[in-house]
Amino acid sequence: MVAPTGVICVGLGPGDPELMSVKADRLVRQARHVAFFRKPGRPGKARQAVQGLLADDVVEYAMEYPVTTELPVDSEAYVQQLSRFYDQWCERLAELARQTQVVVLCEGDPFLYGSFMHLYTRLQARGDVPVDVVPGIPGMVGCWHATGTPITWGDDVLSVMTGTLSEDELVRRMQTADALVIMKVGRNLPRIRRALQRCGRTEAAWLVENGTTAQQQVQRLQDVGDAACPYFAIVLVHGQGRRPEAAW
Amino acid sequence: MVAPTGVICVGLGPGDPELMSVKADRLVRQARHVAFFRKPGRPGKARQAVQGLLADDVVEYAMEYPVTTELPVDSEAYVQQLSRFYDQWCERLAELARQTQVVVLCEGDPFLYGSFMHLYTRLQARGDVPVDVVPGIPGMVGCWHATGTPITWGDDVLSVMTGTLSEDELVRRMQTADALVIMKVGRNLPRIRRALQRCGRTEAAWLVENGTTAQQQVQRLQDVGDAACPYFAIVLVHGQGRRPEAAW
Repeated sequence: MVAPTGVICVGLGPGDPELMSVKADRLVRQARHVAFFRKPGRPGKARQAVQGLLADDVVEYAMEYPVTTELPVDSEAYVQQLSRFYDQWCERLAELARQTQVVVLCEGDPFLYGSFMHLYTRLQARGDVPVDVVPGIPGMVGCWHATGTPITWGDDVLSVMTGTLSEDELVRRMQTADALVIMKVGRNLPRIRRALQRCGRTEAAWLVENGTTAQQQVQRLQDVGDAACPYFAIVLVHGQGRRPEAAW
Repeated sequence: MVAPTGVICVGLGPGDPELMSVKADRLVRQARHVAFFRKPGRPGKARQAVQGLLADDVVEYAMEYPVTTELPVDSEAYVQQLSRFYDQWCERLAELARQTQVVVLCEGDPFLYGSFMHLYTRLQARGDVPVDVVPGIPGMVGCWHATGTPITWGDDVLSVMTGTLSEDELVRRMQTADALVIMKVGRNLPRIRRALQRCGRTEAAWLVENGTTAQQQVQRLQDVGDAACPYFAIVLVHGQGRRPEAAW
């Protein structure tokens, strides 16, 4: 059998290693070369999720973001720095992937707000190495399971948005949804809270961190202050749609 | 070791058995009693997804819906028939689950529009048997992977809705979303198409069936007629949000 080459991005799911797919689990355990994103000075959430699964002699490539929240996401400096970062890693992974298989580790599902997408489009544009992506259970799915309550019923509309939107935009988008998931919370929490208040939905909102992991935290939003909320926390409001136990 | 008792619902993911979680795979292979929903006269999608994984002597419980699309979902007859159906199966599974573990098979993620939720709330209300749920990769995630294109970028809002909504409701909900997932398509396709047309989004829409399986079909919506579309097909519109390769 010829050893595989190319880049394969593996969705790791919400955090519990048992919730990785059978395919992801196999690819991670067999990997000779793994790459993952992280903030400088941090271990990286994706790398942490596979602790204990990797081969002893695996070669690791930490792709460290040059900038995360220090610059506004719509500033020219932010876009240029990130663009160069993705260009350089695309070049490096492609070179490596002509000889061997490179497994890129990504939390959740890589195609739902994942950083790998920026490498994916660049690798596809090059066209000289095979690129594949393995779906994963999105982090938000782990978070709604952490609440022990289904997220949608019957005809409920579920809207998934990021806390980076303006307050008015959040309100406009929330008003046409039944169930809500708000990602990228962190220092956006006060604005998210004001938007939920304007929609009359604060009391039904939950703040969930690290769903499905040993560090899982589930709290009612109204019991939580605005200070020191992690970026990867998720705010949830469950749908209340049609269900056949309704009284008639 | 004491043999486990209780009801555990296992999310099977989008269809490819390799995309079941490590935990789901183990539970399915070890199961002595499995229950699953199906339409009368059909094999059942959840049961088909685990073909070849179940033990030879597993005991199977096919929970056959008394009604699916024959009656309007908001009619009293529909609600009463389904309610009685869930009540009866709750009773039967709870009785069994006092002695042994019953694994309930569910496609996708059980907490996202899953039928198990109706048993879950009833079992929780009884409170006499343990109930647990294992998250799965939702079917829609398998479908957006089938298109080979990320569903959301940057600040995109993703809205997930069902084709059972009225045309005006569909339009109203679509107008505040960037990326769209429309589930429960089937005979609702003409109405979904009219709603997308009113939002100017028909050209960007895809129809995906059986994402991640051998029967996977991905077509542009505008290349597909309205006839004979399966209920479990999904209509997708990808977000076009911010990404750092944007020209400045």
